[in-house]
Amino acid sequence: MALFSMKLDNLQQLYVKELRDLYDAESQITEALPKMIDHAHNPQLKQALQEHLSVTKHQITRLDRIFQMLGEKPTGETCKGMKGVIKEGDEIISAGGDPSTVDAGIISAAQRVEHYEMAGYGTVRTYAKLLGQQEMAKLLQQTLDEEAQADSKLTEIANTVNVEAKAA
Amino acid sequence: MALFSMKLDNLQQLYVKELRDLYDAESQITEALPKMIDHAHNPQLKQALQEHLSVTKHQITRLDRIFQMLGEKPTGETCKGMKGVIKEGDEIISAGGDPSTVDAGIISAAQRVEHYEMAGYGTVRTYAKLLGQQEMAKLLQQTLDEEAQADSKLTEIANTVNVEAKAA
Repeated sequence: MALFSMKLDNLQQLYVKELRDLYDAESQITEALPKMIDHAHNPQLKQALQEHLSVTKHQITRLDRIFQMLGEKPTGETCKGMKGVIKEGDEIISAGGDPSTVDAGIISAAQRVEHYEMAGYGTVRTYAKLLGQQEMAKLLQQTLDEEAQADSKLTEIANTVNVEAKAA
Repeated sequence: MALFSMKLDNLQQLYVKELRDLYDAESQITEALPKMIDHAHNPQLKQALQEHLSVTKHQITRLDRIFQMLGEKPTGETCKGMKGVIKEGDEIISAGGDPSTVDAGIISAAQRVEHYEMAGYGTVRTYAKLLGQQEMAKLLQQTLDEEAQADSKLTEIANTVNVEAKAA
């Protein structure tokens, strides 16, 4: 949420601002993932990140649909939280080293991204429900479920990668 | 994780670096919470944040203990992810506006902090188990449980605050 050059007057306003924040976060993730995919070594990890890139693009389309329903523009916020989280992933990639350890670090960074998003989507899904916007709440719940699935998938891959990194 | 001016050679090294990252994140949270407490309006929210400040200080002591066990220094990393997330909370506070809406925004920012920490502690707890460091794994699990509890408490408070913000 890089929100807030203006006052926060009600939940509807906060809702739109947080949606814009998530829109920017997703755009940042779309830009960051190809580099993570390039630098990942484990084929399952590469594939999971590739799939998540495709899912992320679909999530952006879902947000576009929500902004259309709201009659609002999706742009105007910079998500500083996601900027910081992505910077951490970049540092792991730049560090290099043992392939499995780098993969473990990429998974760790990616799970921070997922958790950040789960917090964000959980919040806006709750706002949408409260504001009586059931169709939007449903769309946001779909994305929330996908983020949780991506996180579980990464945990599963970490089970292999971490053991290899331990033995490095 | 502002890690990584050096190569990542194995899981043990990644473990220490991620612990340092969390140590810095907790320090940042300790500095940020008093401002959030000052600007929160809802008494339950103020109290929950106050309690979390006290819990956070205890979590730092727990990390100090882990660093002692490891024979390592806790300093040397800057958690850029947490920096960004905290900046978002600052912006909400600076924006001001309807008290309940500001409170809803503070809860949203605080839940992003909790989720970031849950991802981080989940990762190092898993590393500690794999590395055969059961005592450390137990300490890290305690913190992880506390973060999850703090997140649930915030969700509970949001149930009241969001309804008030909707009516603003």
